[in-house]
Formats: sequence, C-alpha cells, structure tokens
Amino acid sequence: MDREDYRALFNPRAVAVVGASNNPLKLGYSVYENLKDYPKGNVYPINPRERVVQGSLAYPSLHEVPEPLDLVVITVPREHVEELVRQAGEKGARVAVVITAGFSEVGGEGRELERKLIATARKAGVRVLGPNCVGVMNLKAGLNATFIKAPRPGGMAFLSQSGALAAGLVYRMDSQGGGLSKFASLGNMADLVFEDFLPHLSRDPDVKTIGLYVEGVRSGRAYMEALREATRHKPTVVLKGGKTPQGARAAGSHTGSLAGEYRVFRAATLQSGALVAEGLEEFLAMAQGLEQPLPRGRRVAVLTNAGGPGVLMVDELVRRGLEIAHLSPETVDALRSFLPPAASTANPVDMVASARGNDYWRATRLILQDPGVDMLIAISVVPTFAGIRGVDHADGIRRGVRDARVEKPVLALFMAGRVAEEARLALASNGVPVFETPGEAAAAAWALAWRAGLVGAWPGAPVP
Amino acid sequence: MDREDYRALFNPRAVAVVGASNNPLKLGYSVYENLKDYPKGNVYPINPRERVVQGSLAYPSLHEVPEPLDLVVITVPREHVEELVRQAGEKGARVAVVITAGFSEVGGEGRELERKLIATARKAGVRVLGPNCVGVMNLKAGLNATFIKAPRPGGMAFLSQSGALAAGLVYRMDSQGGGLSKFASLGNMADLVFEDFLPHLSRDPDVKTIGLYVEGVRSGRAYMEALREATRHKPTVVLKGGKTPQGARAAGSHTGSLAGEYRVFRAATLQSGALVAEGLEEFLAMAQGLEQPLPRGRRVAVLTNAGGPGVLMVDELVRRGLEIAHLSPETVDALRSFLPPAASTANPVDMVASARGNDYWRATRLILQDPGVDMLIAISVVPTFAGIRGVDHADGIRRGVRDARVEKPVLALFMAGRVAEEARLALASNGVPVFETPGEAAAAAWALAWRAGLVGAWPGAPVP
Repeated sequence: MDREDYRALFNPRAVAVVGASNNPLKLGYSVYENLKDYPKGNVYPINPRERVVQGSLAYPSLHEVPEPLDLVVITVPREHVEELVRQAGEKGARVAVVITAGFSEVGGEGRELERKLIATARKAGVRVLGPNCVGVMNLKAGLNATFIKAPRPGGMAFLSQSGALAAGLVYRMDSQGGGLSKFASLGNMADLVFEDFLPHLSRDPDVKTIGLYVEGVRSGRAYMEALREATRHKPTVVLKGGKTPQGARAAGSHTGSLAGEYRVFRAATLQSGALVAEGLEEFLAMAQGLEQPLPRGRRVAVLTNAGGPGVLMVDELVRRGLEIAHLSPETVDALRSFLPPAASTANPVDMVASARGNDYWRATRLILQDPGVDMLIAISVVPTFAGIRGVDHADGIRRGVRDARVEKPVLALFMAGRVAEEARLALASNGVPVFETPGEAAAAAWALAWRAGLVGAWPGAPVP
Repeated sequence: MDREDYRALFNPRAVAVVGASNNPLKLGYSVYENLKDYPKGNVYPINPRERVVQGSLAYPSLHEVPEPLDLVVITVPREHVEELVRQAGEKGARVAVVITAGFSEVGGEGRELERKLIATARKAGVRVLGPNCVGVMNLKAGLNATFIKAPRPGGMAFLSQSGALAAGLVYRMDSQGGGLSKFASLGNMADLVFEDFLPHLSRDPDVKTIGLYVEGVRSGRAYMEALREATRHKPTVVLKGGKTPQGARAAGSHTGSLAGEYRVFRAATLQSGALVAEGLEEFLAMAQGLEQPLPRGRRVAVLTNAGGPGVLMVDELVRRGLEIAHLSPETVDALRSFLPPAASTANPVDMVASARGNDYWRATRLILQDPGVDMLIAISVVPTFAGIRGVDHADGIRRGVRDARVEKPVLALFMAGRVAEEARLALASNGVPVFETPGEAAAAAWALAWRAGLVGAWPGAPVP
C-alpha cells in the first residue's frame, strides 16, 4: 500500500457505499448511516433500486457518481463484488473495502471467488481490504466506514484480523473511556495485510500506539520486518489468537510455522520490539498505557483513597519488576500538612475515604514533582456516600497533572463498575488512561517501563 | 461466633443505628438510609440531637429503645464507641458493627482505644465486627447495614478485610450482573475474624460459594482449619492482598509467616481445598462461576456468533488444562439444519453475526444434550446492526438451558462493554454467570473443573 492508498483509505476525498440502504436490517444501512456525515469528502450511496437513501439522492451504479472516487465500500452479496471492484478502478478508486462475507472463510466456491476478486482488483489497480471485514475508521477525521459504532478519538491505532473481536474491544474500550486513532478490520487478508499498514501507521502523527490482533500472517518474514521497523517509531502491542493448536484450528489458520508455534511467534514478536499481550484485558491496558510519556526509571508512586486496592496495586507492580518509590521527606511533610491524621503518607499514599477532588489535585502535583518518583498511579474507589463525587477525583487528578508541569507517566485506576463510569470518561478524555483493576493498571505501567528499557520480559500467563 | 450471634448479625429482629443522621455528609445518614427499610425487624435511629431522622422518630440513646436489640451499628466518633458497646450489651445486643475508624489502623492512641473497646465488649457479651469496617449485608433478607449500595441477591458470600476493595468489587460485580448472598467487611478484625464466619457460611443454605479477601490472619492455624472445614461444604475462593513484601508492608500486615510468605499462604490455602485467585478479575470470575453445577468431565463446548472471541476462548481453556469437546455427528447435523452455510458446526460452533435469539436457544439446547459435552460457554459479541439485540441472545441461552434439562454448567461471555450490559444483567439474573473477557470465562470454567477434581493446579500469574 503506497502513501496515496493510505491517504485514500483513511482520508478519502470521495467515497461510495455500494448497498447503501433504507432497510435497517441490511449492513449497508449501518455503513451508510455511519459514513454519511463524514466531513472531509462526498459520500455517495449506491443502490439501483432506491432513488433516495436515508434522505440523500442515491446513484444506481458507481458509473453515475459525478466525480472520481478514492474509496469504495462494498456491502452487497458476494457474486457482485468482483465486477464492482473493476468499476471502482474505472472511477479512480485506490482502495475497495469489501465488507461482504462468503469468500475464502467458507471454503469451496468462496475461495475461488476470492481468488478471482483479487486478480481483477490487481488488474484494476485497486487495493482490497477484506473481504469479510468490518471496515475502517479514522476517528480524528470523523470517518467511520464500518457497521459498528465509533469510539471516541484517541491515540491508539488498531488492526484486527477478527471483525467481531474488534467490535467487542472497541465497545469495551469505549465504556472504559479509551479511544482510537485509526482502525482497520483486515478480514480474510486477501490483499492488504498487517505489513501494508505498519509503515504508514508508525509514521502517522495522529497515531501514538499500535495494537494488532493477529490470528495468522501471510509472510512471517515480511510481517516481522514491518513490525521491527514500526516499533522503532511507535510502541506496538500484539495479541495472538490461536496460541494453542486447538485455538489455531478454530482460527482456521494454515499459515505455517510462525502462526502454528506460539512460542516462536511470541519470541519473534518480542525481538521485533513489540509487546506481546497474553489476554484481552492486558492488550487494551498496554496499548492505552503506552500513550503516556515514557518513565525515566521504574519507581512508581501509588496515590489512593482506599487501602486494599493500594495493596493489590503494589503487589501487581512488584511482581512485574517495578519498584515502589520512596517519597522525599519534603513531599511527605507537604502531604501531611493537608491530609487527615488517619491518612498514610508512605507510598502508597492513602488519603482515606474522605478525600475529595482538591486532595487529589494537591497530592498528584506534589508526588509528580518528587524527584524520586518516575510514574504515578492514582486510584479512586468512588465513594457513594458523604456527597463525594468520582468526577471530582478525576478532575483533581487532571489538575494535578497539569500543575505539576513534569513529563512523567500518569495512570488511573477507578474501581467501581458503573458507579465510576462518568469519572473514568472525564479523566480519559483528558489524556489520563483509566483502568478498572489493579492488574490492568500494572500491565500498563509495566508496558511503559518495558518500552523505556527499564524492565525485562514479563513472562505473563504460562503458555502451553 | 455462635449460631445465635450469626443469626443476630445477618437476620436481626431489632437493630439500632447509632449516629443515624439527617445530614447526607455523615456515614450514619447512608447507613440508616440503607437499613431503614429492612423488612424483618425494627430499625431504630439513635441520635441525641435530632427528634426525627429521615422521617422516623429518633431515640436519644440505646436505653430508650422500647425492645431488646440483636444488633447495634455504630457510626459515631471513636471516643464514644466503647461506652456504646457496653450499652448495646445491656440492651441484649449480641453483635456490634463498628463502622467508626481511628483505631488500631492509625496506631498510637487508636490501638489503646481498640484494646479497651474489645475488653469492654467481652465483658458485655457483645461480639464486635470491625472497627473500621463497611458493615454487613444479607441480600436475601433485604438487610444492608453498610454505607454502600447493595448489589442484587446472589449465591456468593463475601468476606473482605478491606472495606473499600469490597465496595469496588461489589459495584463491579453489580455492573456485570453478579450478586451476593451475604457480605461482611471485617475491618481491623479486633474481634470477629474469618474463622468466626466460615463454619456458619459453609452450612448456610443461601450461600453457594464463599469469597475471601485476606490481607493477614490472626491465627494461621485456626484460619486454615476453618477453611478446610468450610471447603468440604462450599467452594471457596481466596484473594490475598500483600503477596509481595512491599504489598504486605502497605497492608500494615504484621501477622507472621503465613501472611508474610505468600508461597506458604498459597500452598496452605490450596491444601485446605480452597481456590487461590491471583487477581481481582479471576477472584470474581471463579466465585461466580462456582455457583454452577459441577462438570462431570473437562470437555467444553464453545458457542459463539463471532470467530475471534471463540478462538481466544479456546486458547484460554486449553492453556488451563480443559479440553475442547468433539460434538457428535447427530449434534452437528441438527445444528447444520438451521444454521446458515457460513456457520461452523465444529467446536467452537460459530453461528456467525446473523445469529438471533432462537438460534442461541436451539444451539444451546442441542449442545448441552450432547453426551460428549461437559460444560458450555456461550459467547455473544452483541451486534449493533441489523436489529439484532443482545437481550434476545441472552434470552435464547436461558431458554436453551431450561429446555436442555441437563445438569451441566453453563457460562456466558458477553463482550462489548456498555452495549451488552442489559443482556448481561438479563442472563445473570436467570442464573447464568456472565463474563466480559475470555480470560474471566476460562477462569470460571477452570474453577469448576478444579472443584470437580478434573484438573490440577493452574499456576496462574507467576509469583515473585
């Protein structure tokens, strides 16, 4: 994929949705609905049987579109796709996103259709994303060429070989306050593969971190080379599906030794400078945590309003090779000056349950300014009594980070399910990644320390 | 704690809240608000400075209460607590829940106050929960003698040495659809400790599983003996805070070798027949999963509407020593008869994204009736298109479990954050535990297999 293809895919000047529909039961309905308000180019609904689609004039075919196209999104049944890709090429489109399923993933005739589709696309000069995919998003540009809901804009670029897993992750991330920069669902990877995206994403100023969900790769060598190059520019986290032989069978993976042997894949990925997440929670936590500045050392301070979560947080940090910072006497004195007698000013700094937003503000600032602290994890168990509000805690942390005026990573742990949701969203939208469990926050902290070269490999959960 | 103390604590016939208040900034406000509608006994607000508290006549002191008391909940400053416990004894109370903080956890004078409080309580014949605790709940009886919100009624009894961690867990559980049977926050454990509760909880017909958050124990031997006895009757899961020396220091744990040496604690806990969770997610997942019937074997079937999550699910199961079931030809034929051609009828059974509630119903029933299947994990990545609703999936699974008429464990994985929340709650309230990630569902499946004696110890995350 060249630069112009990448531009056409994520920042198209004109895009058509083939199969755009008025019927909410069709995928083409959702895709056009998500895409129609794209602010940076014209979006054309293509439907030979409707004159108006969702309030806009529809075009009977790609030929009728009154300007050259960059991107064509295809949602109609598989027998039409090859011809549509040919026509897309005639309209100047550089990329076709083929959401339609029923190709090589179902075997038999589908495999043959996919082969012919790609041969025609090559002749037509069109790159193909998919088939059997969810589509693409560029959140900063307001582009959502998928049938799923867009998350908030964020720093993580996410490439997923599984569309549904991507949907699940995107919704989970959105509920936690996270966001995405760019997203592509690779589907059957009949043409565009991970290594087509990596060189561009790693140089994209909107992208802070890269996350990959990989079931198998076409060319182990090309993938690993692209990964090695990408990780020089951007922190990259990989989650592998099909780690076990049974999982690989479920993935229908027939991609040779790199995919089959998880130990080999894992070692090679780590050697390429990417992080390997063992599970979904860890994957998201690492990718979101890595949006923070890198720490200079591995001394972590924990600020909390509750003892137990602070204890578990320390356990999770220490077992991953991080250190618990010693606060300077000056910091301890300053904390002591405004915290109640029951508070603990050792690390973890436990402000106890009465802590309010202003306490978080002062403590965050003081701790971040302590030269013995390389990283801060701020914990709030959102109380539901005494008029204390989680959003005030979130706002206190945000102001503390701002006023500290230091370049140190800050992570937050807001425990309490739905009760803390508003606070999590408020803090995450201000650039502090928020997690729900000590394990997730520690995985993020560890990822930052690893990227900074401060800790060795975390063995994670044992692999079979 | 004898049977009558246990009854008085969880099913009091008359209870007083000392410090019940009209001021929402006081803990006594929240405690009385939560408790006042307790349907099985009278609840008396005690406040010498208010005539009416939250619409009810207040009593100036415990003496004025017109009947004997079972339980007294104390929220007023620490200097009054000892005398109140003495008065509670005079009123016949068997247990005092001391929510008030500022005792041994702050050291110095607090330690002395706690010593005197317990000496007085012994003389008065009153058992003390706390001090420095969140209180108790009996969800089935509608008793919430805490200042936090009550979750739904469920099968898990939860004892927590950390009040805030308990609050965080309860809210998290509640957001996921889980529920609790009985809850007690042990606080400083000046009197009542884990081994006081275990004999009663393990024989309580309302309790299906027991979960403990332990930072340290007073007597390792007494604790382990009580645990060994309890696990003969009920599956029990233990989460340890203070696994690392740094974490133990943060916990202020000075309780000798069992608490200090996590390896020893862990091995002893496993030998007692309890499960050890390495993290918060695992703790909740195991405790909730264990409410299901035990499997007869370790062959798991995975039903899904999405490939990727099925792949990750298989990986997580296999690495924990579970097997992927082979479905019988009859089951495969029956599935094939109604699933679309793109569906996979191998295990995982991937019904693809078009699956609706009735598909889940039929497939769940068929798979559970297959003699080669010991356990089912039903996955839904809730689609947000084509009018497909997650609650329909949840309802289909529920009907399938009902109509299968077999005693096999069923777990569900509904991925998609907030989008799937309604579906998760619907399913969980019908007795199927619901998880948000493959790792959590696999931890629950593993816990069931472990309890059934089918798998060896899962090493979990490495310990330092």
